[in-house]
Amino acid sequence: MDSDYQFDVETAVSADEGSSEANKTVFKTHVTRHYNIAENPNGGYLAAIVTAAMKQVSPHPDPVSVNTHFLRPGSADSDATVTVTLVRSGRSVTTMRATLSQDGKDRLEVLATFGELSGSGQSEPLFTIAAPELPPIDECLLRSGVEQGLNLPILSRVDIQLPAQFALAGQSDEAMVRGWIRFGDGREPDSHAMTLFADAFPPPVFTALGNIGWVPTIELTVHVRRQPQPGWMKGQFWTTDLTDGRFVEDGLLWDSSGALVAQSRQLAMLLTPPPG
Amino acid sequence: MDSDYQFDVETAVSADEGSSEANKTVFKTHVTRHYNIAENPNGGYLAAIVTAAMKQVSPHPDPVSVNTHFLRPGSADSDATVTVTLVRSGRSVTTMRATLSQDGKDRLEVLATFGELSGSGQSEPLFTIAAPELPPIDECLLRSGVEQGLNLPILSRVDIQLPAQFALAGQSDEAMVRGWIRFGDGREPDSHAMTLFADAFPPPVFTALGNIGWVPTIELTVHVRRQPQPGWMKGQFWTTDLTDGRFVEDGLLWDSSGALVAQSRQLAMLLTPPPG
Repeated sequence: MDSDYQFDVETAVSADEGSSEANKTVFKTHVTRHYNIAENPNGGYLAAIVTAAMKQVSPHPDPVSVNTHFLRPGSADSDATVTVTLVRSGRSVTTMRATLSQDGKDRLEVLATFGELSGSGQSEPLFTIAAPELPPIDECLLRSGVEQGLNLPILSRVDIQLPAQFALAGQSDEAMVRGWIRFGDGREPDSHAMTLFADAFPPPVFTALGNIGWVPTIELTVHVRRQPQPGWMKGQFWTTDLTDGRFVEDGLLWDSSGALVAQSRQLAMLLTPPPG
Repeated sequence: MDSDYQFDVETAVSADEGSSEANKTVFKTHVTRHYNIAENPNGGYLAAIVTAAMKQVSPHPDPVSVNTHFLRPGSADSDATVTVTLVRSGRSVTTMRATLSQDGKDRLEVLATFGELSGSGQSEPLFTIAAPELPPIDECLLRSGVEQGLNLPILSRVDIQLPAQFALAGQSDEAMVRGWIRFGDGREPDSHAMTLFADAFPPPVFTALGNIGWVPTIELTVHVRRQPQPGWMKGQFWTTDLTDGRFVEDGLLWDSSGALVAQSRQLAMLLTPPPG
């Protein structure tokens, strides 16, 4: 890894020599605390460590479809292994699965297909989803852990700027959040950052239901559609169905040119009953 | 399998005794031609065979999140093996992965989490997506293979009734299809039928772009939200982003009471360039 940017250093993996079976490669890595949501490493950050390992195996460079199932929370400030199995590599796409383990316990199981994405602006989509209008960044508020009732070390790594109605707890009738996101250290967005960006905004249920603490993800799917242009990205996340303490949350991310870059969907759990 | 319904018989699997490793079970099954899209078994049908095998392993009965990556087309009228690996079983959910193989070649790689779903109507959702109004079934047209330029043996197993603007090629400005679906032999819908129902409507790009032949799926994700009530279900499918010959298609399925039952998303390929 040639980059000195935090995200690249903090998702770096190294192949564990001598551990390879056919089609299987074991990587060593270290999970930092800098992307924590309270005590738990952010799920999108852990998924990005896994796709960084997959990238070493894949002849295709970009994650186009990444399904991550969260088996147990990860451990911050702790070593990890990522075991990548090559499932199939074809002409246009490569499919892999991987397990991230810490202290002998599996934490994430990931199934992903990689391909090669065009840059935003290189080809004209026949259908797409337009970016929403948002207030300028300097009229927005920084995402706050106080409002959600959690410490958010992840805000040392990503800047998230939210219009006021999406920044404060229980201020909205709908379970929707929109805002701006970028890396804090000047690293530009790319296809590998999209699992992190898709899981870094406040949970949309929070704007409607108020302070609901940590919402653990069961499964996160991210489809990356094209390489983003440099600059701030826009995000929109909303809860489409909430019942029996489990909800589906959809997400969209656009680059600075307004091109759709990623679509996400996650199934998550509401641990704290909404204040009633 | 006690049921004589076609879907249950045609997704039945039997454990291959003597083949078990720890956490791994091999099942034998047979892929019929009755769900074909032209020469290829429908992807949602193949995924349903895999979840039928997973159900034998899982202490939790319902697929709540199913990610299927299609490595190669399946073979109709041909035996198959499904190898299920138990990844983790916890209190509320069980995660498994599986590979469906035929003739020594892997066809599907699946990662899924099972849980236990409430019945539609048993609990009140805090947020959900309402079902659209549709013309009565007897004012709709049967899905036609002629219009899509394909033989559709799958129509021997599911009845799909479409309002005229969604039934005819190239008649719509938007890439959207809505309509009615049920099993042809009176079997009622359940959580296990949702991968099939989520992949059985005409591709929405067809209503906008005309006759575009077979659109192979790269990856299909289905989230099942609750057990459906008996009767015809409503479906809505639309293409959200199409670029460089790959597109994302979203889907929703509601039961006869209007409750949201499943949400789907697939990444697929357009092989035939749209007529221009």
